[in-house]
Amino acid sequence: MTEPLRIAIAGLGTVGAGVVRLLTGNAELITARAGRPIEIVAVNARERKKDRGVDLTPYRWQDDLGLMAEADDVDVVVELIGGSDGPAIAFARKALKAGKGLVSANKAMIAHHGAELATLAEEAGKPLKFEAAVAGGIPVIKALGGGAAANEISSLFGILNGTCNYILSEMEQKGSNFADVLKEAQALGYAEADPTFDIDGIDAAHKLAILASLAFGTQISFEEVETRGIREIEAVDIERAAALGYRIRLVGETRYDDGRLFQRVHPVLVPVNHPLAKVDGSLNAVVADGNFVGRLTFEGAGAGAGPTASAVVADIIDIARGELQPAFGVPASALAPAAPAHSDAGKGRSYVRVAVADEPGVMADLTAILRDCDVSIESLIQRGDAGDGGVFIAMITHETEHSRLAEAVRRMADCKAVLSQPMRMDLLD
Amino acid sequence: MTEPLRIAIAGLGTVGAGVVRLLTGNAELITARAGRPIEIVAVNARERKKDRGVDLTPYRWQDDLGLMAEADDVDVVVELIGGSDGPAIAFARKALKAGKGLVSANKAMIAHHGAELATLAEEAGKPLKFEAAVAGGIPVIKALGGGAAANEISSLFGILNGTCNYILSEMEQKGSNFADVLKEAQALGYAEADPTFDIDGIDAAHKLAILASLAFGTQISFEEVETRGIREIEAVDIERAAALGYRIRLVGETRYDDGRLFQRVHPVLVPVNHPLAKVDGSLNAVVADGNFVGRLTFEGAGAGAGPTASAVVADIIDIARGELQPAFGVPASALAPAAPAHSDAGKGRSYVRVAVADEPGVMADLTAILRDCDVSIESLIQRGDAGDGGVFIAMITHETEHSRLAEAVRRMADCKAVLSQPMRMDLLD
Repeated sequence: MTEPLRIAIAGLGTVGAGVVRLLTGNAELITARAGRPIEIVAVNARERKKDRGVDLTPYRWQDDLGLMAEADDVDVVVELIGGSDGPAIAFARKALKAGKGLVSANKAMIAHHGAELATLAEEAGKPLKFEAAVAGGIPVIKALGGGAAANEISSLFGILNGTCNYILSEMEQKGSNFADVLKEAQALGYAEADPTFDIDGIDAAHKLAILASLAFGTQISFEEVETRGIREIEAVDIERAAALGYRIRLVGETRYDDGRLFQRVHPVLVPVNHPLAKVDGSLNAVVADGNFVGRLTFEGAGAGAGPTASAVVADIIDIARGELQPAFGVPASALAPAAPAHSDAGKGRSYVRVAVADEPGVMADLTAILRDCDVSIESLIQRGDAGDGGVFIAMITHETEHSRLAEAVRRMADCKAVLSQPMRMDLLD
Repeated sequence: MTEPLRIAIAGLGTVGAGVVRLLTGNAELITARAGRPIEIVAVNARERKKDRGVDLTPYRWQDDLGLMAEADDVDVVVELIGGSDGPAIAFARKALKAGKGLVSANKAMIAHHGAELATLAEEAGKPLKFEAAVAGGIPVIKALGGGAAANEISSLFGILNGTCNYILSEMEQKGSNFADVLKEAQALGYAEADPTFDIDGIDAAHKLAILASLAFGTQISFEEVETRGIREIEAVDIERAAALGYRIRLVGETRYDDGRLFQRVHPVLVPVNHPLAKVDGSLNAVVADGNFVGRLTFEGAGAGAGPTASAVVADIIDIARGELQPAFGVPASALAPAAPAHSDAGKGRSYVRVAVADEPGVMADLTAILRDCDVSIESLIQRGDAGDGGVFIAMITHETEHSRLAEAVRRMADCKAVLSQPMRMDLLD
């Protein structure tokens, strides 16, 4: 195989322009490693005239995505349009049905339609690859499907959203509130104008659902990911967590036990000496535990034009080499169904922060609730003005069943002296 | 392809037994991910009767390695004999010439004969794979050849020998001397009876030479790795380094600039908050910098039956899937020659420890030497008994040309008041 692999790129945002830049800038090296040239044949985007900082004149501009998906002179289409549905999924389906290989960086589309697309790819005998959909430049999908493929993975967790990690790191370093740091991040381009997908944990949940399917050989079930973002985290939580020896990170966790799939994206408290506590700024990290290999940790840039383009082109190189393994490691039809396991079925230590009226007897009321729910306290800090004459109480519990703590938090919320909804975060132990 | 991939295993030490245990224990999962069963056909080791904790009765015991290399019912041979030459290389050559795929965990053999074996494999149109030769269970060879394949790698460094890292971690935690910790490590099975390859840095140098070839597409040149082990490190060095904010790690570093290949395995001082400073015990870590992906970090178990077997079987799964990329990422004939770059050509900060007679004027002598060589001191600790009435002086220099510091150290060694050879370690900045 020394003929060029001919590709078409749909979507020329940051990542699409990065892919063009990478394929042209490192062309010689890529040709050597792929064993053949990678040739861009056609490109598409909504706006033709926009300056993207790359020269697109050598490529056919194809306005019609449908024609691009079926173009005779294209072997592989690269979908960088984004969005779980709409033009992206229509393009992806059409291309696979037309017998094209498909490379995508679209986590939302894969999380929602990954199994369907994998089935279409297998029917066509063509590759479907999406390394760039998870953890940016970190080749974690290849690691799970290849380097760790001999292992039964028991659990996987990680920092999967660079925007949230950047915001939490900044809050930590500057003592600022969430809303202020978010505004700064938007001004600097680290957060989108509509940051919902990032800060509400949805983007991380997309990625977690994809990783869980790959790690455990289970059907993707994005809908079952318990998802909570970082909006409700206040400067006081960061400060109290630090005083107690922890940092707050938005962590995706998944485990598969007894046919039950646990999937959760939550802000958690991570001990300061834990590897994830040292993942700062917009970095991502993924940790997987295999039954023979033990613990593997992967860290790198979770987003950005260069890292994401690196992952996209790695997939293209794989295809150029003729690799054709199933998208989720095993054939889509062999992915096992998995019933969801809810987090409150487990146990562990937790952090609870509650704003209370500064009056006698409040602490007695709260500790009575905890006693009644059989929750015991490991450490507690009561200081700091919560506004409206209230004070903050922050505590860390001993290991307890999550269902008991959930009940205790419900009762606290009903307490007259409690001024706002108590905030609970679990510890990553 | 649903026919079994038939393999023969030569060498049944810890890793060989681990491969048998993994292939049988995770058989169902491995079959699903490989797309076909992996079938052990024949096994071989020096002693047949030894109890290895695995049932070998289902497999043909093949005493003659030559016959095993050419057996008609074998598709892939797994070389776990060890040693750069002798039976391992004879077996590897014969198997490739007989048209078998070859999987090896043998870093010494690959470091010495990798290019020759890659050429034989390419001539036969068969795969050669050696993920287990570097960094145990961490799939770093696949990451460089696959996940990061689109990048020009500018530099790579890491902790590549678990025995040394275990010894340094123990010295750090217990304040013990090298010799005592080595004895303990041998008693616990963490170090070999003859620990030379590990503690003199040769094992790490084998791995570094392999990684450099993969990362930069250069010819392997193990002979050019500047190699220094950890024998000369004393408890006082660990303690002084800690007092100055550093930990000592045996680090392999490689860079490729202007056609010059820098390869060095040295004990270095790593800032306590650097990711490598947190790699404790027998863990390994590899850090690579790519021109698009940025910095990637991989961490995991660098040795042991389970992790190494995981890497061996990952290679077997790749072969079962029909993957056939060149062993070093590009065809062996395309690997670029690289002239060695010596470390003393560079510059940076360094640590120097010297035992001196406890008498007036010594410090003036040493600082005069440093001044004459144009080396300036950032920090200095003079305390602690060096025996024979001497004291230790430990210092960290400002950034300086290594050649100047080397000259200063030579002059110090000639100083009458200096009681033993000064010890220099560079800083990983």
